[in-house]
Amino acid sequence: MKKVADEICGYTYRTATVAASTVSLEELEQLKVTVGFTPEDERFLRMAGEVLADQTKQIVEHWRSGIIAGIPNLARHSRTPEGELIPRYLAQSNLRFEQWILDTCLRPYDQDWLNYQQEIALRHTSLRKNQADAVQSTTYVPFRDIVAFTAVLNDTIRPYLANKGNSPDEVAGMHRAWGRSLQLQLALWSRPYLDLAGTSCEW
Amino acid sequence: MKKVADEICGYTYRTATVAASTVSLEELEQLKVTVGFTPEDERFLRMAGEVLADQTKQIVEHWRSGIIAGIPNLARHSRTPEGELIPRYLAQSNLRFEQWILDTCLRPYDQDWLNYQQEIALRHTSLRKNQADAVQSTTYVPFRDIVAFTAVLNDTIRPYLANKGNSPDEVAGMHRAWGRSLQLQLALWSRPYLDLAGTSCEW
Repeated sequence: MKKVADEICGYTYRTATVAASTVSLEELEQLKVTVGFTPEDERFLRMAGEVLADQTKQIVEHWRSGIIAGIPNLARHSRTPEGELIPRYLAQSNLRFEQWILDTCLRPYDQDWLNYQQEIALRHTSLRKNQADAVQSTTYVPFRDIVAFTAVLNDTIRPYLANKGNSPDEVAGMHRAWGRSLQLQLALWSRPYLDLAGTSCEW
Repeated sequence: MKKVADEICGYTYRTATVAASTVSLEELEQLKVTVGFTPEDERFLRMAGEVLADQTKQIVEHWRSGIIAGIPNLARHSRTPEGELIPRYLAQSNLRFEQWILDTCLRPYDQDWLNYQQEIALRHTSLRKNQADAVQSTTYVPFRDIVAFTAVLNDTIRPYLANKGNSPDEVAGMHRAWGRSLQLQLALWSRPYLDLAGTSCEW
């Protein structure tokens, strides 16, 4: 599997520390149908993985420094309660963010992928945030901000998809597949937030 | 305000029957920032409203008959528990669906709009589904299907935006604004589902 670095701290994909998803593979298949995700989208995502592979650092910099850092409401989630930077937290979570781009494009959407989607979501809730990096920061990322920022992840990827000389149809196809995958993932990420909402509403 | 019909059964926008949203205008403004929604997007949405105004019937037909009807998991939400069609329910909710297109493009995103977003979401949960039309159907639409189908609402609108001879830049701008608005609305729709999840997890 293609990785953005030899060591990615806290990246536990396919390890025993990742719990089984409470979402079934059958529910995942149904979600694919609802989102309109087809085998053609899988092919376009593989293409996108090749196109984006050497741009992941630049893309995550764009998201983190170019966008999130300028929105106090979002930036606080990687800072201390006093608003100070936590460089190690940023560095480590940025690497995982980079790897997530590749995983979105290149991993098969199987049980391991499903389990890791749940892990990703949990790490944004009060159940797990800050733990992978042993830091002190906000206790959770509100679900609404994840929904809203997904639009940014979708809008901003297009120029990077167009950077390698693919035809306009290929760029459009890769972008469509990327958007569908993100919305599919968002549907999966919503599950831990809903499961948790009875004790802690992290909207 | 532009309406798709003189009488739209169950369309209660700006009436006293619509409760105040539990989301504040300040939270809405923060969400706009997160989603990247700007005054330019507002202008593009106004343009989209003009472009789509005489196409709403065709668009909703496309979504309902062309897509939802072919996905049993989604189609069941407008049918009886035995799977029979409920023509009146479809006709009435289709008109509201058409009006929602115009409201997305042409309404100011103010307190009334915020309140009606909550009303729309509640009508998909077990708290309110079927009530506006006094029908018997599924008790709720799972939140995950709303997230996933938002990708379809976003993918499929583009050709309609391109139908009136606007420049490629205008079509791209209208489409970007539409996608941002949908994700903003999705963030708002998630609130009633999270509030309800302690007693009924409708993921």
